[in-house]
Amino acid sequence: MSRQSNRTTDSKKMNSELFTLTYGALVTQLCKDYENDEEVNKQLDKMGYNIGVRLIEDFLARSSIGRCQDFRETADVIAKVAFKMYLGITPSVTNWSPAGDEFSLILENNPLVDFVELPDNHSTLIYSNLLCGVLRGALEMVQMAVDVRFAQDTLRGDNVTEIRMKFIKRIEENLPAGDD
Amino acid sequence: MSRQSNRTTDSKKMNSELFTLTYGALVTQLCKDYENDEEVNKQLDKMGYNIGVRLIEDFLARSSIGRCQDFRETADVIAKVAFKMYLGITPSVTNWSPAGDEFSLILENNPLVDFVELPDNHSTLIYSNLLCGVLRGALEMVQMAVDVRFAQDTLRGDNVTEIRMKFIKRIEENLPAGDD
Repeated sequence: MSRQSNRTTDSKKMNSELFTLTYGALVTQLCKDYENDEEVNKQLDKMGYNIGVRLIEDFLARSSIGRCQDFRETADVIAKVAFKMYLGITPSVTNWSPAGDEFSLILENNPLVDFVELPDNHSTLIYSNLLCGVLRGALEMVQMAVDVRFAQDTLRGDNVTEIRMKFIKRIEENLPAGDD
Repeated sequence: MSRQSNRTTDSKKMNSELFTLTYGALVTQLCKDYENDEEVNKQLDKMGYNIGVRLIEDFLARSSIGRCQDFRETADVIAKVAFKMYLGITPSVTNWSPAGDEFSLILENNPLVDFVELPDNHSTLIYSNLLCGVLRGALEMVQMAVDVRFAQDTLRGDNVTEIRMKFIKRIEENLPAGDD
Protein backbone atom coordinates (compact mmCIF):
# COMPACT_ATOMS: atom_id res chain seq x y z
CA MET A 1 0.00 0.00 0.00
CA SER A 2 1.51 3.32 -0.96
CA ARG A 3 1.68 6.42 1.14
CA GLN A 4 -1.03 9.03 0.91
CA SER A 5 0.54 12.43 0.43
CA ASN A 6 -2.10 14.50 2.20
CA ARG A 7 -2.55 12.47 5.33
CA THR A 8 -3.30 14.32 8.53
CA THR A 9 -0.64 14.80 11.15
CA ASP A 10 -2.96 14.97 14.15
CA SER A 11 -2.17 12.27 16.64
CA LYS A 12 -4.63 9.65 17.81
CA LYS A 13 -3.88 8.19 21.21
CA MET A 14 -5.26 4.73 21.66
CA ASN A 15 -5.05 1.88 24.14
CA SER A 16 -2.74 -0.87 23.01
CA GLU A 17 -5.07 -3.90 23.19
CA LEU A 18 -6.53 -3.70 19.68
CA PHE A 19 -3.01 -3.30 18.32
CA THR A 20 -1.81 -6.23 20.41
CA LEU A 21 -4.56 -8.52 19.14
CA THR A 22 -4.13 -7.37 15.54
CA TYR A 23 -0.41 -8.04 15.77
CA GLY A 24 -1.30 -11.52 17.06
CA ALA A 25 -3.47 -12.06 13.99
CA LEU A 26 -0.53 -11.05 11.78
CA VAL A 27 1.88 -13.47 13.48
CA THR A 28 -0.71 -16.25 13.36
CA GLN A 29 -1.20 -15.65 9.65
CA LEU A 30 2.55 -15.79 9.02
CA CYS A 31 2.78 -19.03 10.99
CA LYS A 32 0.19 -20.44 8.58
CA ASP A 33 2.01 -19.08 5.54
CA TYR A 34 5.57 -20.16 6.27
CA GLU A 35 7.04 -23.53 6.99
CA ASN A 36 9.05 -22.83 10.09
CA ASP A 37 9.67 -20.30 12.81
CA GLU A 38 12.89 -19.13 11.23
CA GLU A 39 11.04 -18.01 8.11
CA VAL A 40 8.37 -16.29 10.20
CA ASN A 41 11.07 -14.49 12.19
CA LYS A 42 12.62 -13.29 8.94
CA GLN A 43 9.30 -12.09 7.57
CA LEU A 44 8.48 -10.21 10.75
CA ASP A 45 11.88 -8.53 10.62
CA LYS A 46 11.36 -7.62 6.96
CA MET A 47 7.87 -6.25 7.56
CA GLY A 48 9.18 -4.30 10.51
CA TYR A 49 11.96 -2.87 8.38
CA ASN A 50 9.45 -1.61 5.82
CA ILE A 51 7.40 -0.08 8.62
CA GLY A 52 10.48 1.53 10.18
CA VAL A 53 11.58 3.28 7.00
CA ARG A 54 8.14 4.91 6.87
CA LEU A 55 7.61 5.50 10.57
CA ILE A 56 10.84 7.47 10.96
CA GLU A 57 9.42 10.42 9.02
CA ASP A 58 6.38 10.54 11.28
CA PHE A 59 8.66 10.25 14.27
CA LEU A 60 10.96 13.09 13.23
CA ALA A 61 7.95 15.30 12.48
CA ARG A 62 6.25 14.62 15.82
CA SER A 63 9.29 14.64 18.07
CA SER A 64 11.17 17.56 16.50
CA ILE A 65 14.35 15.74 17.36
CA GLY A 66 17.41 16.52 15.30
CA ARG A 67 20.53 14.53 14.65
CA CYS A 68 21.84 12.64 17.69
CA GLN A 69 25.41 13.42 18.79
CA ASP A 70 26.31 9.85 19.58
CA PHE A 71 24.92 6.33 20.04
CA ARG A 72 24.14 7.05 23.71
CA GLU A 73 21.84 9.87 22.73
CA THR A 74 20.27 7.64 20.08
CA ALA A 75 19.60 5.00 22.73
CA ASP A 76 17.87 7.53 24.99
CA VAL A 77 15.73 8.90 22.19
CA ILE A 78 14.64 5.41 21.18
CA ALA A 79 13.73 4.40 24.72
CA LYS A 80 12.25 7.60 26.09
CA VAL A 81 10.64 9.15 23.01
CA ALA A 82 10.05 6.52 20.32
CA PHE A 83 8.92 3.59 22.48
CA LYS A 84 6.81 5.93 24.58
CA MET A 85 5.21 7.42 21.48
CA TYR A 86 4.38 4.26 19.56
CA LEU A 87 4.07 1.58 22.24
CA GLY A 88 3.30 3.57 25.36
CA ILE A 89 6.21 2.13 27.32
CA THR A 90 9.68 3.33 28.31
CA PRO A 91 12.29 0.58 28.28
CA SER A 92 15.44 1.07 30.31
CA VAL A 93 18.75 1.46 28.51
CA THR A 94 21.45 -0.73 29.99
CA ASN A 95 24.29 -3.24 29.49
CA TRP A 96 26.51 -0.86 27.50
CA SER A 97 29.54 -2.44 25.90
CA PRO A 98 32.87 -0.89 27.00
CA ALA A 99 33.31 0.58 23.49
CA GLY A 100 29.88 2.24 23.68
CA ASP A 101 28.70 0.58 20.48
CA GLU A 102 26.20 -1.84 22.01
CA PHE A 103 23.39 -1.55 24.52
CA SER A 104 20.22 -3.30 25.60
CA LEU A 105 16.66 -2.09 25.86
CA ILE A 106 14.90 -3.84 28.74
CA LEU A 107 11.13 -4.01 28.33
CA GLU A 108 9.43 -4.87 31.60
CA ASN A 109 6.06 -4.99 29.90
CA ASN A 110 5.99 -5.73 26.21
CA PRO A 111 2.51 -4.72 25.01
CA LEU A 112 2.80 -6.99 21.97
CA VAL A 113 2.60 -10.11 24.14
CA ASP A 114 -0.17 -9.07 26.52
CA PHE A 115 -2.56 -11.82 25.44
CA VAL A 116 -0.02 -14.34 24.20
CA GLU A 117 1.41 -17.73 25.08
CA LEU A 118 3.69 -19.47 22.61
CA PRO A 119 2.35 -22.89 21.58
CA ASP A 120 4.83 -25.73 22.14
CA ASN A 121 5.40 -26.20 18.42
CA HIS A 122 6.64 -22.61 18.05
CA SER A 123 9.41 -22.62 20.61
CA THR A 124 11.84 -20.83 18.27
CA LEU A 125 9.41 -18.12 17.18
CA ILE A 126 10.69 -14.62 17.94
CA TYR A 127 7.17 -13.36 18.39
CA SER A 128 7.91 -9.63 18.61
CA ASN A 129 10.61 -9.63 15.94
CA LEU A 130 8.76 -6.93 14.00
CA LEU A 131 10.16 -4.45 16.53
CA CYS A 132 13.75 -5.31 15.57
CA GLY A 133 12.92 -4.62 11.95
CA VAL A 134 11.23 -1.34 12.79
CA LEU A 135 14.29 -0.15 14.72
CA ARG A 136 16.69 -1.29 12.00
CA GLY A 137 14.64 0.34 9.21
CA ALA A 138 14.08 3.60 11.04
CA LEU A 139 17.75 3.97 12.00
CA GLU A 140 18.88 3.18 8.48
CA MET A 141 16.89 6.18 7.28
CA VAL A 142 18.93 8.40 9.59
CA GLN A 143 22.17 6.92 8.23
CA MET A 144 22.82 4.39 10.96
CA ALA A 145 23.36 0.73 10.22
CA VAL A 146 22.45 -1.14 13.39
CA ASP A 147 22.10 -4.81 14.24
CA VAL A 148 18.99 -5.45 16.33
CA ARG A 149 17.93 -8.73 17.92
CA PHE A 150 16.06 -10.17 20.89
CA ALA A 151 18.48 -11.37 23.56
CA GLN A 152 15.79 -12.33 26.09
CA ASP A 153 12.04 -12.77 25.83
CA THR A 154 9.48 -13.28 28.60
CA LEU A 155 7.47 -15.36 26.12
CA ARG A 156 10.27 -17.89 26.17
CA GLY A 157 10.58 -17.94 29.94
CA ASP A 158 13.05 -15.13 30.52
CA ASN A 159 12.35 -12.67 33.33
CA VAL A 160 12.47 -9.64 31.07
CA THR A 161 12.42 -8.87 27.40
CA GLU A 162 15.76 -7.57 26.16
CA ILE A 163 16.47 -6.08 22.75
CA ARG A 164 20.17 -5.90 21.97
CA MET A 165 21.33 -3.13 19.61
CA LYS A 166 24.77 -2.97 18.06
CA PHE A 167 26.06 -0.04 16.04
CA ILE A 168 27.65 -1.22 12.78
CA LYS A 169 28.47 1.89 10.80
CA ARG A 170 27.36 5.28 9.68
CA ILE A 171 25.87 5.11 6.19
CA GLU A 172 27.19 7.53 3.59
CA GLU A 173 24.60 10.08 2.50
CA ASN A 174 25.65 10.53 -1.11
CA LEU A 175 23.35 7.72 -2.25
CA PRO A 176 20.14 8.27 -0.32
CA ALA A 177 17.84 5.26 0.08
CA GLY A 178 14.70 5.63 -2.00
CA ASP A 179 11.22 6.04 -0.45
CA ASP A 180 9.96 3.50 -3.02
CA MET B 1 -2.05 -17.73 20.17
CA SER B 2 -3.88 -18.46 23.40
CA ARG B 3 -4.70 -16.00 26.10
CA GLN B 4 -2.37 -15.52 29.01
CA SER B 5 -4.36 -15.72 32.21
CA ASN B 6 -2.23 -13.41 34.32
CA ARG B 7 -1.78 -10.54 31.93
CA THR B 8 -1.61 -7.06 33.36
CA THR B 9 -4.57 -4.73 33.13
CA ASP B 10 -2.61 -1.49 33.13
CA SER B 11 -3.28 0.53 30.04
CA LYS B 12 -0.64 1.63 27.57
CA LYS B 13 -1.56 4.69 25.54
CA MET B 14 0.18 4.84 22.22
CA ASN B 15 0.06 6.86 19.05
CA SER B 16 -1.76 5.10 16.25
CA GLU B 17 0.90 5.17 13.52
CA LEU B 18 2.71 1.93 14.36
CA PHE B 19 -0.66 0.20 14.58
CA THR B 20 -1.71 1.72 11.25
CA LEU B 21 1.43 0.50 9.50
CA THR B 22 1.26 -2.93 11.12
CA TYR B 23 -2.34 -3.25 10.01
CA GLY B 24 -1.18 -2.34 6.51
CA ALA B 25 1.36 -5.16 6.65
CA LEU B 26 -1.41 -7.56 7.63
CA VAL B 27 -3.66 -6.50 4.75
CA THR B 28 -0.74 -6.67 2.32
CA GLN B 29 0.08 -10.19 3.52
CA LEU B 30 -3.54 -11.31 3.05
CA CYS B 31 -3.56 -9.81 -0.45
CA LYS B 32 -0.56 -12.03 -1.21
CA ASP B 33 -2.20 -15.09 0.36
CA TYR B 34 -5.65 -14.94 -1.18
CA GLU B 35 -6.75 -14.88 -4.76
CA ASN B 36 -9.16 -12.00 -4.73
CA ASP B 37 -10.40 -9.05 -2.70
CA GLU B 38 -13.55 -10.87 -1.69
CA GLU B 39 -11.52 -13.56 0.07
CA VAL B 40 -9.34 -10.93 1.75
CA ASN B 41 -12.44 -9.07 2.93
CA LYS B 42 -13.78 -12.32 4.42
CA GLN B 43 -10.50 -13.10 6.17
CA LEU B 44 -10.29 -9.60 7.63
CA ASP B 45 -13.82 -9.94 8.94
CA LYS B 46 -13.04 -13.35 10.42
CA MET B 47 -9.83 -12.14 12.06
CA GLY B 48 -11.70 -9.14 13.41
CA TYR B 49 -14.39 -11.42 14.81
CA ASN B 50 -11.78 -13.44 16.71
CA ILE B 51 -10.28 -10.22 18.02
CA GLY B 52 -13.68 -8.86 19.04
CA VAL B 53 -14.63 -11.89 21.11
CA ARG B 54 -11.43 -11.40 23.12
CA LEU B 55 -11.38 -7.59 23.20
CA ILE B 56 -14.88 -7.36 24.75
CA GLU B 57 -13.63 -8.70 28.07
CA ASP B 58 -10.89 -6.08 28.19
CA PHE B 59 -13.45 -3.44 27.22
CA LEU B 60 -15.95 -4.38 29.91
CA ALA B 61 -13.18 -4.46 32.53
CA ARG B 62 -11.80 -1.06 31.55
CA SER B 63 -15.04 0.78 30.90
CA SER B 64 -17.08 -0.62 33.81
CA ILE B 65 -20.08 -0.40 31.52
CA GLY B 66 -23.00 -2.71 32.27
CA ARG B 67 -25.75 -4.02 30.04
CA CYS B 68 -27.12 -1.44 27.61
CA GLN B 69 -30.85 -0.71 27.84
CA ASP B 70 -31.38 -0.52 24.10
CA PHE B 71 -29.61 -0.34 20.73
CA ARG B 72 -29.32 3.45 20.99
CA GLU B 73 -27.31 3.15 24.16
CA THR B 74 -25.20 0.45 22.54
CA ALA B 75 -24.49 2.79 19.63
CA ASP B 76 -23.37 5.56 21.96
CA VAL B 77 -21.11 3.26 23.95
CA ILE B 78 -19.48 1.94 20.79
CA ALA B 79 -18.84 5.40 19.38
CA LYS B 80 -17.93 7.36 22.49
CA VAL B 81 -16.21 4.74 24.63
CA ALA B 82 -15.00 1.83 22.52
CA PHE B 83 -13.75 3.70 19.43
CA LYS B 84 -12.20 6.34 21.67
CA MET B 85 -10.47 3.70 23.77
CA TYR B 86 -9.05 1.50 21.02
CA LEU B 87 -8.69 3.81 18.01
CA GLY B 88 -8.53 7.25 19.61
CA ILE B 89 -11.43 8.61 17.58
CA THR B 90 -15.11 9.29 18.25
CA PRO B 91 -17.32 8.57 15.25
CA SER B 92 -20.71 10.24 15.08
CA VAL B 93 -23.83 8.09 15.37
CA THR B 94 -26.38 8.92 12.71
CA ASN B 95 -28.81 7.74 10.01
CA TRP B 96 -31.08 5.83 12.38
CA SER B 97 -33.69 3.65 10.72
CA PRO B 98 -37.29 4.51 11.71
CA ALA B 99 -37.53 1.22 13.63
CA GLY B 100 -34.37 2.06 15.61
CA ASP B 101 -32.66 -1.16 14.59
CA GLU B 102 -30.05 0.35 12.25
CA PHE B 103 -27.58 3.18 12.49
CA SER B 104 -24.36 4.44 10.96
CA LEU B 105 -21.03 5.29 12.50
CA ILE B 106 -19.40 8.12 10.57
CA LEU B 107 -15.60 8.18 10.85
CA GLU B 108 -14.17 11.48 9.73
CA ASN B 109 -10.65 10.21 10.23
CA ASN B 110 -10.09 6.50 10.06
CA PRO B 111 -6.66 5.89 11.60
CA LEU B 112 -6.33 2.57 9.78
CA VAL B 113 -5.99 4.32 6.43
CA ASP B 114 -3.63 7.14 7.40
CA PHE B 115 -0.81 6.00 5.12
CA VAL B 116 -2.87 4.15 2.54
CA GLU B 117 -3.94 4.37 -1.06
CA LEU B 118 -5.70 1.42 -2.68
CA PRO B 119 -3.83 0.13 -5.74
CA ASP B 120 -5.97 0.00 -8.89
CA ASN B 121 -6.07 -3.79 -8.87
CA HIS B 122 -7.71 -3.84 -5.44
CA SER B 123 -10.73 -1.69 -6.12
CA THR B 124 -13.08 -4.04 -4.28
CA LEU B 125 -10.90 -4.44 -1.20
CA ILE B 126 -12.68 -3.39 1.99
CA TYR B 127 -9.44 -2.34 3.56
CA SER B 128 -10.65 -1.73 7.11
CA ASN B 129 -13.02 -4.70 7.21
CA LEU B 130 -11.33 -6.01 10.36
CA LEU B 131 -13.31 -3.37 12.27
CA CYS B 132 -16.63 -4.88 11.17
CA GLY B 133 -15.52 -8.25 12.45
CA VAL B 134 -14.35 -6.78 15.75
CA LEU B 135 -17.72 -5.11 16.32
CA ARG B 136 -19.63 -8.24 15.32
CA GLY B 137 -17.54 -10.51 17.55
CA ALA B 138 -17.59 -8.19 20.56
CA LEU B 139 -21.35 -7.67 20.38
CA GLU B 140 -22.00 -11.38 20.00
CA MET B 141 -20.27 -11.91 23.33
CA VAL B 142 -22.81 -9.59 24.96
CA GLN B 143 -25.65 -11.53 23.33
CA MET B 144 -26.31 -9.25 20.39
CA ALA B 145 -26.28 -10.55 16.83
CA VAL B 146 -25.50 -7.55 14.63
CA ASP B 147 -24.79 -7.17 10.94
CA VAL B 148 -21.86 -4.80 10.35
CA ARG B 149 -20.58 -3.54 7.00
CA PHE B 150 -18.87 -0.59 5.35
CA ALA B 151 -21.41 1.57 3.52
CA GLN B 152 -18.90 4.28 2.50
CA ASP B 153 -15.12 4.44 2.52
CA THR B 154 -12.84 7.40 1.89
CA LEU B 155 -10.32 4.94 0.43
CA ARG B 156 -12.77 4.31 -2.37
CA GLY B 157 -13.49 7.96 -3.02
CA ASP B 158 -16.35 8.61 -0.61
CA ASN B 159 -16.27 11.79 1.47
CA VAL B 160 -16.52 9.95 4.76
CA THR B 161 -16.16 6.44 6.08
CA GLU B 162 -19.50 4.96 7.16
CA ILE B 163 -19.99 1.72 9.06
CA ARG B 164 -23.59 0.52 8.95
CA MET B 165 -24.82 -1.56 11.87
CA LYS B 166 -28.07 -3.51 11.89
CA PHE B 167 -29.49 -5.27 14.93
CA ILE B 168 -30.53 -8.82 14.06
CA LYS B 169 -31.54 -10.48 17.31
CA ARG B 170 -30.75 -11.01 20.95
CA ILE B 171 -28.86 -14.25 21.45
CA GLU B 172 -30.21 -16.64 24.09
CA GLU B 173 -27.84 -17.05 27.01
CA ASN B 174 -28.54 -20.70 27.83
CA LEU B 175 -25.87 -21.89 25.40
CA PRO B 176 -22.94 -19.57 25.98
CA ALA B 177 -20.48 -19.12 23.12
CA GLY B 178 -17.07 -20.67 23.77
CA ASP B 179 -13.87 -18.69 24.19
CA ASP B 180 -12.55 -19.91 20.89
